[in-house]
Amino acid sequence: MQTIQSVAEMQQWSSIQKRSGRRIGLVPTMGYLHDGHLSLVRQARQECDLVVVSIFVNPMQFGVGEDFEEYPRDLTRDCALLEQEQADVVFAPAVKDMYPPGYSSFVEVEGEITTKMCGASRPGHFRGVTTVVSKLFHICQPDLAFFGQKDAQQAMILEKMVRELNFPLKIVRVPIVREEDGLALSSRNVYLNPQERQEALVLSQSLQAARQLIMDGERDVEKVKDFIRNIIATSPGAQIDYIELNKADDLASLPRIEGKVLIALAVKFGTTRLIDNLLVEV
Amino acid sequence: MQTIQSVAEMQQWSSIQKRSGRRIGLVPTMGYLHDGHLSLVRQARQECDLVVVSIFVNPMQFGVGEDFEEYPRDLTRDCALLEQEQADVVFAPAVKDMYPPGYSSFVEVEGEITTKMCGASRPGHFRGVTTVVSKLFHICQPDLAFFGQKDAQQAMILEKMVRELNFPLKIVRVPIVREEDGLALSSRNVYLNPQERQEALVLSQSLQAARQLIMDGERDVEKVKDFIRNIIATSPGAQIDYIELNKADDLASLPRIEGKVLIALAVKFGTTRLIDNLLVEV
Repeated sequence: MQTIQSVAEMQQWSSIQKRSGRRIGLVPTMGYLHDGHLSLVRQARQECDLVVVSIFVNPMQFGVGEDFEEYPRDLTRDCALLEQEQADVVFAPAVKDMYPPGYSSFVEVEGEITTKMCGASRPGHFRGVTTVVSKLFHICQPDLAFFGQKDAQQAMILEKMVRELNFPLKIVRVPIVREEDGLALSSRNVYLNPQERQEALVLSQSLQAARQLIMDGERDVEKVKDFIRNIIATSPGAQIDYIELNKADDLASLPRIEGKVLIALAVKFGTTRLIDNLLVEV
Repeated sequence: MQTIQSVAEMQQWSSIQKRSGRRIGLVPTMGYLHDGHLSLVRQARQECDLVVVSIFVNPMQFGVGEDFEEYPRDLTRDCALLEQEQADVVFAPAVKDMYPPGYSSFVEVEGEITTKMCGASRPGHFRGVTTVVSKLFHICQPDLAFFGQKDAQQAMILEKMVRELNFPLKIVRVPIVREEDGLALSSRNVYLNPQERQEALVLSQSLQAARQLIMDGERDVEKVKDFIRNIIATSPGAQIDYIELNKADDLASLPRIEGKVLIALAVKFGTTRLIDNLLVEV
């Protein structure tokens, strides 16, 4: 496994591989890898000739007062894990190489898909994501790029971006990986103290219960939201950011529950903001 | 020579050529080709294994009240000219294939480079250009892309976009081609009546005279602008949009004339807006 830090060197590597007809799989990450990331790498390993994992904590997708500085980092451990998973290249560029002085080029997806949910709570976040992912696509030139369903809105936005801007690649969504007790894996889980870690179970529990409620026949969006809100309220430390039910393909609002529905939550425990989601089809 | 209209088919062709290691040259145009366009095609023919010429009148780069509907089109004649120049593919997509319903993805370069000059006169124009060119780059996957120095600001913006978003390609700028009397070639020249055609010569004439003035020692930006303004005023039908002198590498303002300077003009004759420019190094 090679570690490449230079943008130019990474792009040259990709261009050479591309010209020789090899299929490149890219797994973009912000590092501090957990089993959710590794499931992306395993799937890339199965489907591609070459697997590139990028590790870059992207300042452009963090807002003022968010956790860019504190975001956990451990490149040595990440590289050891990726070596085990037989990744071919770890691409870990420096911020100043990705965003040199005077940088002012952006890629943006507009509309409800980016202004709802995490887009409402984190203005500019998705613009930072679509910009850095576009850069990574150009640098690493993947045939397939792997993203987790944990960040469902992000995956949906990137699929729209790839389709509309005609990137010559496909996005593969990989299911959420959870702890045994149901908590979705996230690099931010390390921020939780034991009390918060326990309380955070209301995320997955309320999603499961909501699914059951819908399976039992409930079709009223507001009633399902209230139901979830009441379950989350049993955790004294939980502050709800949003509870949303939207169409799973474009995040359009639903007058009633029908078709493919994405139930998505963002909840803060102390200073740690966690997200989780579930797809339901009725 | 092949003509391809489908975006998917064009992208598939490019992917196959790319994998076999051939160098693709792209000449993006809005059609109604003149010798300026053909000089781009000839240079692409010299430097690349395969030459793709795109012909697409891009609605996104036209403002309200501009000439999108009237913009001259003649695909049959264009194809005949490109056949002579030994282009390999003409890519002529339909608007609805490039911008399907619900389209909302954009590529943007921010800052002075896009807000000055044509950016001030035509809000949203360069966002339309950077978006469509990004799409064409992803669809045609060129190693080299050829643009005319006639649209100097456009070329500069696209170079910044390619550098900052890390597109895996190089932009080649090709010099302005002029009529014998000095008028820069433009598809919009067909709009001019004989009187306007004659008056339009003040563009190249004032640029040449301004260069001489600078060569003779003038370093005051406002004095050179006044000098140009006075020459243009000799044409009774000319309405000046802008006369600008800026740094040639990033369009930054100049306190005094020094280094590489871009002198750029936009002037309307009747309803026809023409641009021209000249590089001076002192």
